[in-house]
Amino acid sequence: MALLHDDRLFPAEEGTRAIARRLYASIRGLPIVSPHGHTQASWFADNKPFPNPVALFIQPDHYVFRMLYSQGISLEDLEIGHPYIEEPREVWRVFASHYHLFRGTPTRLWLDFAFQQLFGLTERLSATTADDYYDTVCAKLASQQFLPRALYDRFGIEVLATTDSPLDSLQDHRLIREGARSGGWAGRILPTFRPDPVVDPAFPGFAKNIETLADISGEDTATWRGYMRALAARRHFFKALGATATDHGHPTAQTADLTESKASRLFEAILEGTADAAQQEQFRAQMLTEMARMSLDDGLVMQIHPGAVRNHNAQIFARYGRDMGADIPMRTDYVEALRPLLNRYGNEPGLTVILFTLDETAYSRELAPLAGHYPCLRLGPPWWFHDSPEGMMRFREQATETAGFYNTVGFNDDTRAFLSIPARHDLARRIDSAFLARLVAEHRLEEDEAVELAHELTYGLVKKAYKL
Amino acid sequence: MALLHDDRLFPAEEGTRAIARRLYASIRGLPIVSPHGHTQASWFADNKPFPNPVALFIQPDHYVFRMLYSQGISLEDLEIGHPYIEEPREVWRVFASHYHLFRGTPTRLWLDFAFQQLFGLTERLSATTADDYYDTVCAKLASQQFLPRALYDRFGIEVLATTDSPLDSLQDHRLIREGARSGGWAGRILPTFRPDPVVDPAFPGFAKNIETLADISGEDTATWRGYMRALAARRHFFKALGATATDHGHPTAQTADLTESKASRLFEAILEGTADAAQQEQFRAQMLTEMARMSLDDGLVMQIHPGAVRNHNAQIFARYGRDMGADIPMRTDYVEALRPLLNRYGNEPGLTVILFTLDETAYSRELAPLAGHYPCLRLGPPWWFHDSPEGMMRFREQATETAGFYNTVGFNDDTRAFLSIPARHDLARRIDSAFLARLVAEHRLEEDEAVELAHELTYGLVKKAYKL
Amino acid sequence: MALLHDDRLFPAEEGTRAIARRLYASIRGLPIVSPHGHTQASWFADNKPFPNPVALFIQPDHYVFRMLYSQGISLEDLEIGHPYIEEPREVWRVFASHYHLFRGTPTRLWLDFAFQQLFGLTERLSATTADDYYDTVCAKLASQQFLPRALYDRFGIEVLATTDSPLDSLQDHRLIREGARSGGWAGRILPTFRPDPVVDPAFPGFAKNIETLADISGEDTATWRGYMRALAARRHFFKALGATATDHGHPTAQTADLTESKASRLFEAILEGTADAAQQEQFRAQMLTEMARMSLDDGLVMQIHPGAVRNHNAQIFARYGRDMGADIPMRTDYVEALRPLLNRYGNEPGLTVILFTLDETAYSRELAPLAGHYPCLRLGPPWWFHDSPEGMMRFREQATETAGFYNTVGFNDDTRAFLSIPARHDLARRIDSAFLARLVAEHRLEEDEAVELAHELTYGLVKKAYKL
Repeated sequence: MALLHDDRLFPAEEGTRAIARRLYASIRGLPIVSPHGHTQASWFADNKPFPNPVALFIQPDHYVFRMLYSQGISLEDLEIGHPYIEEPREVWRVFASHYHLFRGTPTRLWLDFAFQQLFGLTERLSATTADDYYDTVCAKLASQQFLPRALYDRFGIEVLATTDSPLDSLQDHRLIREGARSGGWAGRILPTFRPDPVVDPAFPGFAKNIETLADISGEDTATWRGYMRALAARRHFFKALGATATDHGHPTAQTADLTESKASRLFEAILEGTADAAQQEQFRAQMLTEMARMSLDDGLVMQIHPGAVRNHNAQIFARYGRDMGADIPMRTDYVEALRPLLNRYGNEPGLTVILFTLDETAYSRELAPLAGHYPCLRLGPPWWFHDSPEGMMRFREQATETAGFYNTVGFNDDTRAFLSIPARHDLARRIDSAFLARLVAEHRLEEDEAVELAHELTYGLVKKAYKL
Repeated sequence: MALLHDDRLFPAEEGTRAIARRLYASIRGLPIVSPHGHTQASWFADNKPFPNPVALFIQPDHYVFRMLYSQGISLEDLEIGHPYIEEPREVWRVFASHYHLFRGTPTRLWLDFAFQQLFGLTERLSATTADDYYDTVCAKLASQQFLPRALYDRFGIEVLATTDSPLDSLQDHRLIREGARSGGWAGRILPTFRPDPVVDPAFPGFAKNIETLADISGEDTATWRGYMRALAARRHFFKALGATATDHGHPTAQTADLTESKASRLFEAILEGTADAAQQEQFRAQMLTEMARMSLDDGLVMQIHPGAVRNHNAQIFARYGRDMGADIPMRTDYVEALRPLLNRYGNEPGLTVILFTLDETAYSRELAPLAGHYPCLRLGPPWWFHDSPEGMMRFREQATETAGFYNTVGFNDDTRAFLSIPARHDLARRIDSAFLARLVAEHRLEEDEAVELAHELTYGLVKKAYKL
Repeated sequence: MALLHDDRLFPAEEGTRAIARRLYASIRGLPIVSPHGHTQASWFADNKPFPNPVALFIQPDHYVFRMLYSQGISLEDLEIGHPYIEEPREVWRVFASHYHLFRGTPTRLWLDFAFQQLFGLTERLSATTADDYYDTVCAKLASQQFLPRALYDRFGIEVLATTDSPLDSLQDHRLIREGARSGGWAGRILPTFRPDPVVDPAFPGFAKNIETLADISGEDTATWRGYMRALAARRHFFKALGATATDHGHPTAQTADLTESKASRLFEAILEGTADAAQQEQFRAQMLTEMARMSLDDGLVMQIHPGAVRNHNAQIFARYGRDMGADIPMRTDYVEALRPLLNRYGNEPGLTVILFTLDETAYSRELAPLAGHYPCLRLGPPWWFHDSPEGMMRFREQATETAGFYNTVGFNDDTRAFLSIPARHDLARRIDSAFLARLVAEHRLEEDEAVELAHELTYGLVKKAYKL
């Protein structure tokens, strides 16, 4: 018995499946390059064991608890938001007895992968097997082979980027880096510059953050120019610790191209707290263009992740705070929104801007046509709700014919759940193999080309796009 | 020769088809649960024979006559809008000689099912076979086995909901119910509370309807509180006659959460006829939230069906009135629109709100993420233009990975064409079997799970969601 | 070795593929009917050889150079915008060494078709084979068999429409026509009336164009009525030279239905240059309705092609002008936009309006429901970015169930690249065969019906819809 079939996610038609198998065989062993995600550098700096299955599989994973919540299980029953889980076995049992809810979801595929590949479990998770799972996972987590660094090595990770506030000291990154330099663990953990807390006036604590930015950088962030210098300095600091990219999670993809004096006055209004919603949006818009300008100087790759309505559930937000599974995508426009930035920097050979979306309608209508023209643009992989078998397939089907493969940048696991990383990369490799196999089976591509492309989609393009 | 192949709608690939066959075999005999539709209770109360093939297949079915009209056949030639069809055989011949227009549409599949399964016809409908069809159908319709109650029983219907105005006396429902209680026909025909005529100020006759509501309920509907009491009373009346659900066909999904005094003043403006379009929209929005509040009291399940531009063709509307095949879907937003209602009641364990859409782009972007989080939300099946093989498949492909299967509610036939009910349910069962079979064939699900899910999608989830 | 496989673009599953092969065999030899495209009548009037592979395959084809540009190749390196290509072999080498960029795109399929079918090349284009390709193509282009008229005949073209300004003298069309009448070459090259330069106030040179229109027509275009008469006259002139259709490339699908006095005053404001953007949009909107009115008089079929943001890249536009691969689709609404025109003329039996879109979300939500009701409406084939294997398949999957096949109008090649015409039609025939084969394999259609439909989709419907 097994949770995983060797042919999983391959098309059923025999000829196509045989091609998919061959393509997948040529890439399954490639190192994992993870240029965008939400793991914690401290895990690798401290290298302490993960405490228990709940802390590992449920608490950090809003994919898991949002589904349980949607079916009437309270967040209290899952001890979400508790600093310390008091009854992890009970929480695990609740999860196990509702495991059928995940049928047809990628979460199910990711979890089964980890259960079998890492913990040797082969019987399906259910109320019946809950305790056996719990005990098995607990036992393994206590062993040396399940410490974060050991897992990183075992997963075959070549490089792993985290996502960090510009106000972060990056102390953990520094420790890992220094350790490696002095002959210690050689894992490559890189920070990513995510300036939302200091460029989005709607971010909680924005005013305070601007002050902290002044303290850290030694610049006068009460002036536009000082603020610019402070941001440039923090980018430089991140870059010195290995960062190759920035990331921007604005509500929309809106950009702006104001004169310096207008930008400066807008910044004043923001600092004075007199800016209305439209001005705040314009400020975020201008800051994307400023970030592009700085990228031309320092070479950091820009990632733009728009389109999430954050904290849609007011009651959940009031009680549990951010990132509680209550972010919902919304319609997102790119064509007019990106125009100011693109008109200024879109033809710069030195700039790379990677676009993501939560609105799949943009793939064929806006994103592929934009990326198939502007030299600076690349398409990020399917994101968040869409990094699933069907979602990934739709991305390839809808983007490739206009943007080609070479304007895409490989896979992002984008996860907070460290153990899901190999599962997610495996899933992406299988879906890419399946998509390419169909093109070969339908004689739209030769197999030698598909082999080359499979390698590019898994390894080549991501290293090039993110400058890794 | 046959119109129907046993393997219709199953994937062609042999392995997958074999799985689909097995799944379908496990559910094909399940009773039909029809929680949402537009049949007439009077058919079952009176149990009179259906007059002729035109009255049965063409006149009530806007799917049929809109296609004919789009290809230049006048509604006059089809005697649409005539109280009595003068030359039914001639109308039937027009239809038969244009039957090729329906190639590739679900209408063709539904009709062929009825032709063969109910009338034993096996040669394709065409100008040549028109008269044979006409005579065969007429002969059968005159027999006992084709009376409405006999067909209900033969179709294996367990429960059938109609859609009714709050002003309706539900006399037919009462008669059926009393008949059953006194040992007569035991069919279960339930009303559904559809308050559009008394909550949508743009509904034809709204002011008059509010007065009638007063007469029926004995409440003073000239005041906000009396109006609220009147609505609650009518809901109670519907519930007493078996209703388990309400249905709301607003142009948009907009909700509101006004204070009582604001709602009351808005209602005054509506009654005075001074409300502009924005106020009318706000009133409808507020009424959805009021309906949710009442649902918390009386337990009725809410269905929201937004997104149709009604009566798009002004000339057709002026001459023939509503429901003449000239309703066109429009872009529909849910994320911001539902926020007021969800912020107030979204986390209530006792509430069920079933969301429908005519805008398929909302499946993966808005509806699945919402239903995969809020405990009160469930996703209705593909609706209207989309309750077709490709439409149903897109729904499963686009909604399942985020919402799972268990946040959906099975199938609605939603039809005015009584004879299409078994055809529509059969089609849905086949498509669900085909979708599940692919997941099994691609090793994304085990077959025992697919069997369980097929049963849930056909029978279990609908009974639970609609409290039947 | 071969670039093309006989089964290309057919589904891999053997049973379905066998059906697709049979369907394709029944239509592959049908004449090419090309009712909409951007070839030059002068090619056929002059019948001069095409100069070299670059002028043939790269310079006129923005699909080709936009992809190269997106990957960092400058337009200078491709000598785009040069009146005379100085180093065609060098440009060709750049293209050849980047041919892998086109993997997965329709451009690759179109080019391979031309390379093999016309030039006998069977080894893949690459840096290695660049010179061999260049020499082979050059040699053939110099031969009699590769003159435009010979190619037209060889391609099996029955009729080919160009797209022309209302200010065009159509001298080349006249010459071809007169030649044919006097026993010369019998190719049928028809003009299409594309009035954008004189009905879109935002069109470069609009005011001057209106004056030229006066000169050509002898009407006083400074008055609304004179302007109307001038347009009617030009339409008449086009019709006299064989035109059967008009074409409208407005930014949106907005229509209007103003009184004559309002339209007249709006026209005055436009001519005076005092009209703002909203008034310009209203003017374009009114002109679509005026064109529909004129179509009722003269019988010309209307084509509406909305949804492109033209010249998105300001730097490219400033340096190279229009049509440089920097047009990007945008979201496009039809339901409310078309209402004024449809309310006035939507039920006219004599009118045909063919709708196109760059926004695929409109297929199932708006376009198919509209075309499945209004007698005047037909759906144009997938356009521009979407005239690709996946794009065509999505169109059939998303439009057919509501609009049927008979509300569509066959294929448009819409190309500036003459040599891609047979490739594009071949691709469309294969995809239609593949789609129909799936319906047959899934028993949603009988094979004899699919054979009939394949013929209609390739030949019958286009001739009927465009009155050819």
